[in-house]
Amino acid sequence: MAAPETQITRLDRLIHDRVRLGILSALAASSEMSFGDLKAALEVTDGNLSVHARKLEEAGYIICRKSFTGRTPRTEYTMTSAGRRAFEKYLDHMDAIIEATRGKKK
Amino acid sequence: MAAPETQITRLDRLIHDRVRLGILSALAASSEMSFGDLKAALEVTDGNLSVHARKLEEAGYIICRKSFTGRTPRTEYTMTSAGRRAFEKYLDHMDAIIEATRGKKK
Repeated sequence: MAAPETQITRLDRLIHDRVRLGILSALAASSEMSFGDLKAALEVTDGNLSVHARKLEEAGYIICRKSFTGRTPRTEYTMTSAGRRAFEKYLDHMDAIIEATRGKKK
Repeated sequence: MAAPETQITRLDRLIHDRVRLGILSALAASSEMSFGDLKAALEVTDGNLSVHARKLEEAGYIICRKSFTGRTPRTEYTMTSAGRRAFEKYLDHMDAIIEATRGKKK
């Protein structure tokens, strides 16, 4: 197995970003989340959330649904199964890195 | 405790960057590493390594020593105790996030 530092450079860059990691983590726990709920949970600006959600959408990791509640526009996000697989893989990867880094110091 | 997605936005930004995480991980395992060895381990360019090592140096997380072996300049990096503490804290933080994310899905 490659050294932890080499493994780190192979982490999924799309997921490793702090905001995108937050979006996936939130959607892994809830079947659906609104733009407003995600924004509050992640403590980010509208612009920041939009940009990063769009990247995950383009990768096919999440789906964005727009609708109206009366006259109020509503945006809901859900995670795709491809997104869940990629996120699981990232977590396994990070877990292995943490273990290897700590193991080496013993 | 805050939800995993909120915790993620509080991860140490200085450490979370892929290359900087790699540098700290490598130096946590070795007492000292040369610029060349780090570059090979992380599979990054000279410029990329320089920029990120400088940021960690400015934060007081690593120390850079320049010397000569004959006429060949040599740059060696070591981790400071502040760097080790910050890195440990980051790993604990990431570990808690992984656990919380997985726990929530059960």
